Amino acid sequence: MLNLKAQPLTPEAFEPFGDVIDSRSANSFPINGGRTQRYHDLASVEILGDGGRPLISIFVSQPVQVPLAVDCLERHPLGSQAFIPLHGEQFLIVVAPPGDAIDPQSVRAFITDGHQGINYRAGTWHAVHSVLDHEGEFLVVDRGGPGHNCDEKPVEILVNLE
Amino acid sequence: MLNLKAQPLTPEAFEPFGDVIDSRSANSFPINGGRTQRYHDLASVEILGDGGRPLISIFVSQPVQVPLAVDCLERHPLGSQAFIPLHGEQFLIVVAPPGDAIDPQSVRAFITDGHQGINYRAGTWHAVHSVLDHEGEFLVVDRGGPGHNCDEKPVEILVNLE
Repeated sequence: MLNLKAQPLTPEAFEPFGDVIDSRSANSFPINGGRTQRYHDLASVEILGDGGRPLISIFVSQPVQVPLAVDCLERHPLGSQAFIPLHGEQFLIVVAPPGDAIDPQSVRAFITDGHQGINYRAGTWHAVHSVLDHEGEFLVVDRGGPGHNCDEKPVEILVNLE
Repeated sequence: MLNLKAQPLTPEAFEPFGDVIDSRSANSFPINGGRTQRYHDLASVEILGDGGRPLISIFVSQPVQVPLAVDCLERHPLGSQAFIPLHGEQFLIVVAPPGDAIDPQSVRAFITDGHQGINYRAGTWHAVHSVLDHEGEFLVVDRGGPGHNCDEKPVEILVNLE
């Protein structure tokens, strides 16, 4: 059993796994005559394989219990997957870098601050979506289309908050 | 001067212009062992032209005054553009169907209910983003890449709430 404490999510710590989507930390410029500030191109949307296309979906998720027992990680080899909270929801993230094996030393756990969304790079191992406290609603941008786009691997991980 | 009253946004009324993104009205199925309900593929993401790619960005917009005076509509011929409120923001929408001319008879104004996002079809004429009441933050999925992707046309439209 691997015991992890969830660390505060930062773009630097999440870099091996994907992007943090957050207007506080990004490149921006004014548009619409100055009425709008555009925080531009915050995530690398990856759509791989023949016939792939980007999807916009909403996930409505029930909250997890903490400590969070994770018995499986999954990856999507053909596309990235972005999650953005629609009502300030905080969520837990458990990830391992792309690769056919999961090295326990490389597994990381993070907690978001409610303002942050994330984008898993194609192939990044991750736990299923784990919202804290109460039911949550998330905007999801991922890949649709033919091809095998989900692998699962059993793990034994217990995640606590700090 | 065209005077319009903003109508409540519905998927049916918005169909000529694009998609309403809303978990209350969509096709869904359970995933993650039942912990999550996936409201699937809520918008047609269009990425046209050579070298186009989907972008995820955040728009932070200052509120408009009502009645809203609209002196210009714009369109993006090479891609769709989706706006999803990140904190329940309501916004005004002024649209006309794709085509080189804007027929005043075909212009429509809508108001969202705070839970709804929208996706403008490629080529749909629309006013710049118009959030009500207070500063708003929106997740935007649109197209990046080379090519001419914004046309503007002068109009004279005044939009009131009902």
